[in-house]
Amino acid sequence: MVAFTLSGIAERLGGTVFGDGTVKIRQVATLERATPDTISFLANERYLGFLKSTRAGAVIVGEAFRSGVELPHIVADNPYAYFARVSSLLNPVPAVAACRHPSAVIDPAAVVAPSASIGPGAVIEAGADIGEAAVIGAGCFIGAGARIGPRCRLYPHVTVYHDCCIGDGTLIHSGAVIGADGFGIAMDEGRWLKVPQIGGVRIGRDVEIGANTTIDRGAIEDTVIGDGVKLDNQIQVAHNVEIGAHTAIAACVGIAGSSRIGAYCRIGGASGIAGHLSITDHVEISAHTLVTKSITEPGTYTGAYPFETNRDWRRNAASLRRLGELGDRVRALEKTLGQKTKGQ
Amino acid sequence: MVAFTLSGIAERLGGTVFGDGTVKIRQVATLERATPDTISFLANERYLGFLKSTRAGAVIVGEAFRSGVELPHIVADNPYAYFARVSSLLNPVPAVAACRHPSAVIDPAAVVAPSASIGPGAVIEAGADIGEAAVIGAGCFIGAGARIGPRCRLYPHVTVYHDCCIGDGTLIHSGAVIGADGFGIAMDEGRWLKVPQIGGVRIGRDVEIGANTTIDRGAIEDTVIGDGVKLDNQIQVAHNVEIGAHTAIAACVGIAGSSRIGAYCRIGGASGIAGHLSITDHVEISAHTLVTKSITEPGTYTGAYPFETNRDWRRNAASLRRLGELGDRVRALEKTLGQKTKGQ
Amino acid sequence: MVAFTLSGIAERLGGTVFGDGTVKIRQVATLERATPDTISFLANERYLGFLKSTRAGAVIVGEAFRSGVELPHIVADNPYAYFARVSSLLNPVPAVAACRHPSAVIDPAAVVAPSASIGPGAVIEAGADIGEAAVIGAGCFIGAGARIGPRCRLYPHVTVYHDCCIGDGTLIHSGAVIGADGFGIAMDEGRWLKVPQIGGVRIGRDVEIGANTTIDRGAIEDTVIGDGVKLDNQIQVAHNVEIGAHTAIAACVGIAGSSRIGAYCRIGGASGIAGHLSITDHVEISAHTLVTKSITEPGTYTGAYPFETNRDWRRNAASLRRLGELGDRVRALEKTLGQKTKGQ
Repeated sequence: MVAFTLSGIAERLGGTVFGDGTVKIRQVATLERATPDTISFLANERYLGFLKSTRAGAVIVGEAFRSGVELPHIVADNPYAYFARVSSLLNPVPAVAACRHPSAVIDPAAVVAPSASIGPGAVIEAGADIGEAAVIGAGCFIGAGARIGPRCRLYPHVTVYHDCCIGDGTLIHSGAVIGADGFGIAMDEGRWLKVPQIGGVRIGRDVEIGANTTIDRGAIEDTVIGDGVKLDNQIQVAHNVEIGAHTAIAACVGIAGSSRIGAYCRIGGASGIAGHLSITDHVEISAHTLVTKSITEPGTYTGAYPFETNRDWRRNAASLRRLGELGDRVRALEKTLGQKTKGQ
Repeated sequence: MVAFTLSGIAERLGGTVFGDGTVKIRQVATLERATPDTISFLANERYLGFLKSTRAGAVIVGEAFRSGVELPHIVADNPYAYFARVSSLLNPVPAVAACRHPSAVIDPAAVVAPSASIGPGAVIEAGADIGEAAVIGAGCFIGAGARIGPRCRLYPHVTVYHDCCIGDGTLIHSGAVIGADGFGIAMDEGRWLKVPQIGGVRIGRDVEIGANTTIDRGAIEDTVIGDGVKLDNQIQVAHNVEIGAHTAIAACVGIAGSSRIGAYCRIGGASGIAGHLSITDHVEISAHTLVTKSITEPGTYTGAYPFETNRDWRRNAASLRRLGELGDRVRALEKTLGQKTKGQ
Repeated sequence: MVAFTLSGIAERLGGTVFGDGTVKIRQVATLERATPDTISFLANERYLGFLKSTRAGAVIVGEAFRSGVELPHIVADNPYAYFARVSSLLNPVPAVAACRHPSAVIDPAAVVAPSASIGPGAVIEAGADIGEAAVIGAGCFIGAGARIGPRCRLYPHVTVYHDCCIGDGTLIHSGAVIGADGFGIAMDEGRWLKVPQIGGVRIGRDVEIGANTTIDRGAIEDTVIGDGVKLDNQIQVAHNVEIGAHTAIAACVGIAGSSRIGAYCRIGGASGIAGHLSITDHVEISAHTLVTKSITEPGTYTGAYPFETNRDWRRNAASLRRLGELGDRVRALEKTLGQKTKGQ
């Protein structure tokens, strides 16, 4: 395992060292369970109490928390980002040797870069193109004409349908399905006709896609995921959605067809975006929120029901079903009293 | 690529041609990005503005929008369904040649029709029956005794557990799991006992099942999906659910155990149906709605929290937690004023 | 198929027989569709009506419903648990013969117990350890250094990433992904840095994990699932979550990072637990509820929007957006009338 002195870390990554710069760091750790050869970080006030008792060899802090730290420490502008860099330094992604496992089924009309690695049982169809140093995990399926960019990493059991395009350096976790048919159906004389889904999926560079996330192909044009987008697990992206660069979406979110989400948005877990909407850049959506209209102003938007004890909920939820009527009753009272309010 | 004249399309599919019927059509397109060899359609007033500027060679419209169209056009009763037919005409599903890939593992006691196609690495267990012209994608698993009807298409990585039955012409997308055990557990002296799930799953004809959707096998009797049902991605159907014919369900919906959903229902994304309920035919459920009681009348039902800015939400959600009490206060005011309202 | 007399069942499983103990029982059934060689049960008053008309050969009831039963019956303290035991007696899990399918790819540096069964196309990486009588289904992937305990059963297409640990006797359904990277990202100068996820996943004994459920590996320390936990389908467990023993979670639930859920909790379908929370033992969360604060008292908590007709919802949801203001108006009325309420 690699090791660096605290000063050695700061030489590579910046930041200012305070205290003994010769302490050896072998791994990152939480404040609570750190050992003397590890470095920890404080990015959240919530964990300030652990700073006193931690056994860490060193710690990363922001300017704001500097004064209380007696351990050797590095002061960084963005302690969490700094921590991410330290962890990457100490935990480099192991290189995967170029290989084509003999059990992989690679169509002779596919192009596989010599430095790519194709795992056991993977299937690469005709016309697919696998870039330099790409890693295709065990049992992955890459459909006809699909393009997997250089340095992409697909964990085992990823499915990429025909003619989809994955940008360079993108990482896709197991069970993700890219390019299944969008949900295009037209009611006709008592039964649903299928609308052929002839678009594809275009995914940018340095995207990460979580386990069991699904991104459907477009109905006519493509579904588009911008550069640097980060998608957690079990997200559903419907046909013809466009997601702007560097937007991050937490798990279990569903985005309905043809909606456009801006750049640098953050969407909380299990939220939903209705179809045919547009959300501008720098919008934050809270968890469990259903967005039913376009959002044109940056800011935070919320729509979760506030939970409470079941007993309280029973009373309040029943009242909610009569809320319009309650408003009428208040209006009647105001009329009786000759009272006008700004609410009217 | 195939091509038809506008008149040639109307000869095959009906509808009335207005303008130059000799224009050649090679593909479908959106109004916005159409080219002169494509046909587009207008089914939604929202896109009326694009009709003036489109470069499409022709367009499909309903009677209502006819007057404004200068391009060659076809007038159809149901423009979206007509568009679906045109797209199917121009984009026929490629036939898959009969084949048994040498890497597929087919039990000698399975029955595979000579015209079926079994992809690389697929596993077909004993007693399974694969119908004529069925396509079993790469890496699919078909459990013992399962039946896959003629002309079914299973995309790569579909799992069908033992003894499940898939009707003719049904299409299942990657990652779907049919027939896993229902969630049957009984608490007994501090631990959960598993209740064996001895039912199966019966899926009708011409069903479509989206990527990563799960349909559990029944506890005692079967889980049943009717003919022509359309299920989007990441839907969860619990044990012993029954879904009536031609019902369409959007992504991320969860249906709890033993509930029965009627025919021709439409269920919006991320909605939930609690267990042991019955929903009649022709019911529409809005997105993000939890149905907690049976529904006996056709109509549209909704239960999503209306989203707003986080600032407004904070105030209103806090008030919601005191809503029952607010009702009491209004009642007290009414009493003071000797006022009676129909709400009391 | 096995068969027992009613008395033979009671000898093995306890309970008291009333009526003819010689009736032969071959299978379990619902009251509604039972035949004379089956045993049914009544655990829910809802189904009392079927008791009169059932054709079952015998029935399992609790003391409370005894008086009305004319059929041969067994009285048990916990009829549903008793039914589970009878069903297990009549439907024993078929033993799987030890085998290593020739198409499986097993690294020479993996340890596979002689009594384990490794299905077609399964991949077992170096350092993985597969316990006695474990069953690894077709196409499963077991990453380097992972440990699958004795008597585990993994259905086809389960993915276990490197260094994850599955306790003895645990059952995992198809499409589940154990140990994908947690969603750890840090914003740094306009792009997301990936935070290496160096923890693992530790799953206890006798756990059941549903189809397409995802459990992410920890960022630094492990994600931990306690003994006897039961997880339904399509659940998302984020990095560093801890779930206490014998907690049961229904389908489509999402649990955000670092939250701790106690033992013997029950969480309803499609609920969400926000990150960094703590929920004590014996808490019940209703379906579609978002928990945004720690819960320190056992009990039932709820936060679902009560559904109604779309027409009523339109009115009430619009009022909800003005609820804080309605409170102000009531306060103004109270002031006018010189009225004070406990609500103020």
